[in-house]
Amino acid sequence: MPRIDAPIEEFRHLRPSVTEPEDFDEFWSTTLREARSLAAPPRLTPIDSPLSSFEVYDVTFSGFGGEPVLAWLVLPTGATGPLPAIVEYVGYGGGRGLPHERLAWAASGYAHFIMDTRGQGSVWGSGGGTPDPHGSGASVPGFMTRGIADPHDYYYRRVFTDAVLAIDAVRSLAQVDASRVAVCGGSQGGGITLAAAGLSEGLVAAMPDVPFLCHFERAVGLTGSDPYEEIVRFLSVHRGAAATAFRTLSYFDGVNFAKRATAPALFSVGLMDPVCPPSTVYAARNHYAAHADIVEYEFNEHEGGQGVQWQRQAEWLAARAAVL
Amino acid sequence: MPRIDAPIEEFRHLRPSVTEPEDFDEFWSTTLREARSLAAPPRLTPIDSPLSSFEVYDVTFSGFGGEPVLAWLVLPTGATGPLPAIVEYVGYGGGRGLPHERLAWAASGYAHFIMDTRGQGSVWGSGGGTPDPHGSGASVPGFMTRGIADPHDYYYRRVFTDAVLAIDAVRSLAQVDASRVAVCGGSQGGGITLAAAGLSEGLVAAMPDVPFLCHFERAVGLTGSDPYEEIVRFLSVHRGAAATAFRTLSYFDGVNFAKRATAPALFSVGLMDPVCPPSTVYAARNHYAAHADIVEYEFNEHEGGQGVQWQRQAEWLAARAAVL
Amino acid sequence: MPRIDAPIEEFRHLRPSVTEPEDFDEFWSTTLREARSLAAPPRLTPIDSPLSSFEVYDVTFSGFGGEPVLAWLVLPTGATGPLPAIVEYVGYGGGRGLPHERLAWAASGYAHFIMDTRGQGSVWGSGGGTPDPHGSGASVPGFMTRGIADPHDYYYRRVFTDAVLAIDAVRSLAQVDASRVAVCGGSQGGGITLAAAGLSEGLVAAMPDVPFLCHFERAVGLTGSDPYEEIVRFLSVHRGAAATAFRTLSYFDGVNFAKRATAPALFSVGLMDPVCPPSTVYAARNHYAAHADIVEYEFNEHEGGQGVQWQRQAEWLAARAAVL
Amino acid sequence: MPRIDAPIEEFRHLRPSVTEPEDFDEFWSTTLREARSLAAPPRLTPIDSPLSSFEVYDVTFSGFGGEPVLAWLVLPTGATGPLPAIVEYVGYGGGRGLPHERLAWAASGYAHFIMDTRGQGSVWGSGGGTPDPHGSGASVPGFMTRGIADPHDYYYRRVFTDAVLAIDAVRSLAQVDASRVAVCGGSQGGGITLAAAGLSEGLVAAMPDVPFLCHFERAVGLTGSDPYEEIVRFLSVHRGAAATAFRTLSYFDGVNFAKRATAPALFSVGLMDPVCPPSTVYAARNHYAAHADIVEYEFNEHEGGQGVQWQRQAEWLAARAAVL
Amino acid sequence: MPRIDAPIEEFRHLRPSVTEPEDFDEFWSTTLREARSLAAPPRLTPIDSPLSSFEVYDVTFSGFGGEPVLAWLVLPTGATGPLPAIVEYVGYGGGRGLPHERLAWAASGYAHFIMDTRGQGSVWGSGGGTPDPHGSGASVPGFMTRGIADPHDYYYRRVFTDAVLAIDAVRSLAQVDASRVAVCGGSQGGGITLAAAGLSEGLVAAMPDVPFLCHFERAVGLTGSDPYEEIVRFLSVHRGAAATAFRTLSYFDGVNFAKRATAPALFSVGLMDPVCPPSTVYAARNHYAAHADIVEYEFNEHEGGQGVQWQRQAEWLAARAAVL
Amino acid sequence: MPRIDAPIEEFRHLRPSVTEPEDFDEFWSTTLREARSLAAPPRLTPIDSPLSSFEVYDVTFSGFGGEPVLAWLVLPTGATGPLPAIVEYVGYGGGRGLPHERLAWAASGYAHFIMDTRGQGSVWGSGGGTPDPHGSGASVPGFMTRGIADPHDYYYRRVFTDAVLAIDAVRSLAQVDASRVAVCGGSQGGGITLAAAGLSEGLVAAMPDVPFLCHFERAVGLTGSDPYEEIVRFLSVHRGAAATAFRTLSYFDGVNFAKRATAPALFSVGLMDPVCPPSTVYAARNHYAAHADIVEYEFNEHEGGQGVQWQRQAEWLAARAAVL
Repeated sequence: MPRIDAPIEEFRHLRPSVTEPEDFDEFWSTTLREARSLAAPPRLTPIDSPLSSFEVYDVTFSGFGGEPVLAWLVLPTGATGPLPAIVEYVGYGGGRGLPHERLAWAASGYAHFIMDTRGQGSVWGSGGGTPDPHGSGASVPGFMTRGIADPHDYYYRRVFTDAVLAIDAVRSLAQVDASRVAVCGGSQGGGITLAAAGLSEGLVAAMPDVPFLCHFERAVGLTGSDPYEEIVRFLSVHRGAAATAFRTLSYFDGVNFAKRATAPALFSVGLMDPVCPPSTVYAARNHYAAHADIVEYEFNEHEGGQGVQWQRQAEWLAARAAVL
Repeated sequence: MPRIDAPIEEFRHLRPSVTEPEDFDEFWSTTLREARSLAAPPRLTPIDSPLSSFEVYDVTFSGFGGEPVLAWLVLPTGATGPLPAIVEYVGYGGGRGLPHERLAWAASGYAHFIMDTRGQGSVWGSGGGTPDPHGSGASVPGFMTRGIADPHDYYYRRVFTDAVLAIDAVRSLAQVDASRVAVCGGSQGGGITLAAAGLSEGLVAAMPDVPFLCHFERAVGLTGSDPYEEIVRFLSVHRGAAATAFRTLSYFDGVNFAKRATAPALFSVGLMDPVCPPSTVYAARNHYAAHADIVEYEFNEHEGGQGVQWQRQAEWLAARAAVL
Repeated sequence: MPRIDAPIEEFRHLRPSVTEPEDFDEFWSTTLREARSLAAPPRLTPIDSPLSSFEVYDVTFSGFGGEPVLAWLVLPTGATGPLPAIVEYVGYGGGRGLPHERLAWAASGYAHFIMDTRGQGSVWGSGGGTPDPHGSGASVPGFMTRGIADPHDYYYRRVFTDAVLAIDAVRSLAQVDASRVAVCGGSQGGGITLAAAGLSEGLVAAMPDVPFLCHFERAVGLTGSDPYEEIVRFLSVHRGAAATAFRTLSYFDGVNFAKRATAPALFSVGLMDPVCPPSTVYAARNHYAAHADIVEYEFNEHEGGQGVQWQRQAEWLAARAAVL
Repeated sequence: MPRIDAPIEEFRHLRPSVTEPEDFDEFWSTTLREARSLAAPPRLTPIDSPLSSFEVYDVTFSGFGGEPVLAWLVLPTGATGPLPAIVEYVGYGGGRGLPHERLAWAASGYAHFIMDTRGQGSVWGSGGGTPDPHGSGASVPGFMTRGIADPHDYYYRRVFTDAVLAIDAVRSLAQVDASRVAVCGGSQGGGITLAAAGLSEGLVAAMPDVPFLCHFERAVGLTGSDPYEEIVRFLSVHRGAAATAFRTLSYFDGVNFAKRATAPALFSVGLMDPVCPPSTVYAARNHYAAHADIVEYEFNEHEGGQGVQWQRQAEWLAARAAVL
Repeated sequence: MPRIDAPIEEFRHLRPSVTEPEDFDEFWSTTLREARSLAAPPRLTPIDSPLSSFEVYDVTFSGFGGEPVLAWLVLPTGATGPLPAIVEYVGYGGGRGLPHERLAWAASGYAHFIMDTRGQGSVWGSGGGTPDPHGSGASVPGFMTRGIADPHDYYYRRVFTDAVLAIDAVRSLAQVDASRVAVCGGSQGGGITLAAAGLSEGLVAAMPDVPFLCHFERAVGLTGSDPYEEIVRFLSVHRGAAATAFRTLSYFDGVNFAKRATAPALFSVGLMDPVCPPSTVYAARNHYAAHADIVEYEFNEHEGGQGVQWQRQAEWLAARAAVL
Repeated sequence: MPRIDAPIEEFRHLRPSVTEPEDFDEFWSTTLREARSLAAPPRLTPIDSPLSSFEVYDVTFSGFGGEPVLAWLVLPTGATGPLPAIVEYVGYGGGRGLPHERLAWAASGYAHFIMDTRGQGSVWGSGGGTPDPHGSGASVPGFMTRGIADPHDYYYRRVFTDAVLAIDAVRSLAQVDASRVAVCGGSQGGGITLAAAGLSEGLVAAMPDVPFLCHFERAVGLTGSDPYEEIVRFLSVHRGAAATAFRTLSYFDGVNFAKRATAPALFSVGLMDPVCPPSTVYAARNHYAAHADIVEYEFNEHEGGQGVQWQRQAEWLAARAAVL
């Protein structure tokens, strides 16, 4: 696949102008305050699994609207004392999967918390099971345009709120050292990571891989790949809706969250990525308000660094949230 | 595209066995009773349009849960006395569009009522605008698996209820002769037509074109085309969910509605249709409880007969709901 | 689909240089004079249809070489006095279809005349039936390279002549006010519209939608989509034929017709259109000799504005050819 | 590509029923008589080429309607005495190309005559240049549906007549032994070979490779590949035209020519051929009235045996038309 | 994707006839004897990784020809006493990857040994690094036709020998209980699993998932997907080579290994699998000489059961090689 | 297919900077010296063929490592005195094919020598049969990444050496005038032609058509087409290997050979070529150290000029290596 984006030299150091609504902070502080007011403590059910090296818990915590969201919590067996924790968000269409599928963080001494994505979890892998009990106006199949007419109704308002409350839930656990929590995820998970980094305080690190949901005004129409293309399809039918839609999206743009982040970050980017074009990743990284490293994968598409990036993360994170 | 289905000789006269739940009738009578109990009279707003030959109304009527559903009502200008009416349902992903896009029925002397499909209307044409204010469990992008875990939650429970209440709404109009109402639609609109035909009484005709939503047990996995393939994707991730999903689908199978229909029908089928394989159309037609004609388009795919089929319908219908 | 064209800023106000043969006007005046000398009055056969709101006529008029060309004439039933008229040309591969398929103009009080495209009408919809009784040299399947070795033999010489004589035919009708005739069409129909606008006098309006057949020197090779790509295929085999072919095409370039137009125009363009790249549409619009508005559809491909554009046209036209 | 046809066991020895019009022989004898009455002797222009091993002539001979058809005649330099000759027909979309592209037959001591295909020669290779000065009714891009409404107007009536008159022309040459003429070709060229074999007398051999234009009633709709699919597209728009079209095609079906052939034949077939499904090739071979060998290429698609098949032909032919 | 295989009822209980060479056992006993005679003890290098829950070793063991083959050995940290072991083979194009990518078996108390596939490891994931220091005759890009002219030269002779010697190497380790070794793998890894099961003695279990390399005579040409299609491409060029190629393949057919297996097996199969058609999987399973369970994934393609199947395996294996 | 490369104006006269290793000349002189030290005289076996105009020899000559490489030698029958010779190299995936497939050069009075490409010859046409008895490290299916970790092991080291020794072999033949040898080939054959032109002395001409293997640093990642894309795939898995790989490739870059060429050259280029982007062809041509003509095919993709280019070559070559 030929590169679709501009040459890397044109954006590696660019901080493009990205629309930010005036009431961005108020919108989110109100949203989070309401959600937190409805939250109950997380429920942990130990799972009987063959994974004797780990303790696995099926978790239900309170997300947006106090609604139940599923997660896995995986801990190294026999850990004593509070552990540093990693909250992971997953890619578009996927769910929390099965606990044995992601063991590397827990095997490295972290409490690993994998959040299900509400409504998703039916397209690849072993899926998820968290409902999204909210309808929407006319929308394109997928999640990108659900509620796009109003930021209060937009699907990712609920998901990002879940993501922040997942951190709250993790911090409330006895097994976790609340002062050492990091967030990570790839693609959509990377976009959620940025939202969490911009909306949570006191994180020790954020590790967005090939993040989605950044610089919508550039991404939508630049790439012909889903999920950004869902928005193109919507706007091709709702021909007068662009201004409204992009206004809504500005409340959810990873660039705007990046501007508010306080934890150091490790990004990754695939320079041939047709799904999350690299210039949109750099837009978020270059606006990131705290220290932000980035690993470039020159010949990779959206798969990015895969297991190699995990090695980079584990090493990078050790200095920031080291297991004692 | 080569034919994917069995040779026509194998199913043209076949009435395949299709699962029907024991409480099918109770499920639907309860569903409709509840919806009707919440219904308000339709609101008609005359539209100022250049279409001087027609009177156009923007309609909002009560659908499932008393929720507002949009429609267009188009009447020939200057009609005196109640008209026979046609209620039309639209194809997957589309909406009611714009009133000038479908004028042939009204031009032939019918009151033409085009129902928007809740939540859809964003994929092609000029779209729609009816919300579907109901969330769902984990689902595949699209509408086929929303709420598939339980027939009460399934998306098409709401759509089919809307379809029946659209007929109620039309019959309540002064401009319409309530005893001469027909239903029609292509693809998904054909599947809804069958549901309406099975759930409404006293219709004068049903005209399902290349109907979708028929004989799920055969269709799912036979064709690799969406929307049936959405269900395959769902089951490929939710690996143990097939029995539950097909049980839900049995409440919505066009074959089961066909068994209950009382109005004469005119079907159409494309013998090379990869989206709605012809054997699944014949399954509904051959189980149809009233008289059912069918027009075969031997060399057509899912587009079927298009304008040619409308001519067949107009002629066929004239004898059943003739404009006086 | 990613955009294939240059950024809109680069061509929105550009008037590119386009080759124009010295004898362009003489070529066309001779062509039209000859055709008109062979023309007989149009024959109108009333059609018995269910469309009681309209009178429908099956028309045969004299086109290029005096050869018969089919058309539909649709009038609102009961119209008194001459009507303003709209002559519509159709897209590549299609034909005049069936009269009930395009009723909006007649429903708005216009005499609507839909011209069949000779030789075409077999690829989509319900087709056409006008022969093109002229052979050609070696050509690529399709119509773009038939007779391309000489402008006198080129296929579109015949089609554009048909288009002008269609206007003559319409003006000759008792039901029509010859001083209020407009032309329109989408894609190929838009290209024919431009030719008609450049070759006919006294039109009240031209409404080319996403017009094809403009700025060949840029379009051929810019897009990989048919029908422009037919010319690429031809030149890839006939490796020395480019100069001859582009000379022929210069007699048929919408840009050269635009330079000669006298009626106000309403263009439309899809900014993501891979079939008729937007810069080629702007080339015609920016060279248009009379007033020319244009509607941009930012997120649409070749479908452009569809029904939305018709609404724009109907409103725009009302001030120019208003039904009294 | 998976096989699309029935298992080979089902048709290797099958002689399917194929429609044959009653006046088939009369149609063709009249057609050929008329064409021959208009024929002039072939004109041979020696070409100055670097091919010192061969004498090359640019030939124009009289085909259908006395119309000029191009060909190459290639002879081994210094041949003395009349040579056995091979008339070759080319595949769909191609032309006679350049004389240096096909030298093997002349290098083996044959007079090699390569006929251009009228109207074609613009899609691959180095093309052709014979016009087809006949128009047609509405048709699908391509040649398969030109004039399909009437066998007298059908495109292949002209091509097959050209093919027979090419043999006449070759036999009239001083350099050729008129009693030792063979015909060959691949794909469309194979279909023309069958027509020539059924319509010419006294040929010494016919060598159709992966022949097209056989058993239309089975082929059309069995494969989704062009060119057979052109007919499907035509019938999908002209929905009532199937009976007329297949009646026309029955005058041009390779099976009906095979029934009349008198020269021994060497067929080839690709068992994975999606363009000319093997069962349609076997239909012609199994109906072939003279001795007919066939070479199966089990793992080949439409390319068949390529150079390997030529070796088989050269060996097979040596015993029948041996160079002395 | 529509199913390409026969209906499941036709092969679920079928034991098709599959060619087996007379000297199959001799071929393999000689091959293994030679390889073992060249083998040196495995070298284990402990890896410094963040995976504190596991001990990871970079392993080099002697494969075919005494050539070095890479592997990972992963053990639960702090295990005392010999562990049951699992030898895993990987899918086509992949390599051993990185040790943190597959932790579930070690986390369940097994010594987990992941063998690199010689020459591969460059197409997906994080790859591999074992050379295959053997050239080949003319071959299709890929590994399926390297050395296909002679079973002694065939690529999989080396890979299968590596696979058996991997088991030898594992059994030689102090950390492993040599009497409790199982083999597993998916796709190509499943085919290698079958080879290992047929060629090794004393295994406690074999778990081939969606195995490739089974029933070549049926698979080659049934599916159009790589890698089986590599063989089709080879045979389409080397037109006389089929008999030789299939003779070679018969020494490597999973069905023939299955006939010789002694360990109980747990298969899996995707009923919509276009890469390893389900009938070819059933051919191996139904010929399997020991007890063989199979898990069907009705709506899955080649991905099969993924994480769900691992859960089935872990449970199934516990009774056979239980961690004490 | 839209053009993927920069506009022609940007590179038609550009001499881009291309990495050249310091020891390039030493590497190749050592390589060739070693190979020549192992070379035996070519063996010619006359072939009994029907091609009476030509003498055909099945040739085996010594290539890299003294290893046997196949070729065809075709001479005009009855030639007296030494002939000028043409050594031809073939495109990726192909082999020497069959001798009757390429007769034009011999028919023009040249001794024509067609070299098989080791290991290839299994993807198209009638193939080849020269083994490549060298293994490699982990590589992507195909030949582009075999041995890419070290220039000594790289696949094309062997092929280019074969190419130079083919010239040696041809010059040693009694039938050939050693002072009049030219080289040619298309695509990969064009890349090999450049290597031969840079590494051999005293050639009279080099004729690379649409050459592959030029300016790797630009080509890899510019086009998404194989075979360049094989390298992208490799680097996407071996994420740290780019520097090493491009260092290896710099020993094999057609640009670096072009800088050393002494024979006049005739290049060709397809300006729409997505496989060998035109800027990479121009990079070689503009660095070519001797006179270099180029023929542009503006509307061709990778097929370039085909038979037309042969005519250009034959005429161009006549002045340089004329047959007496």
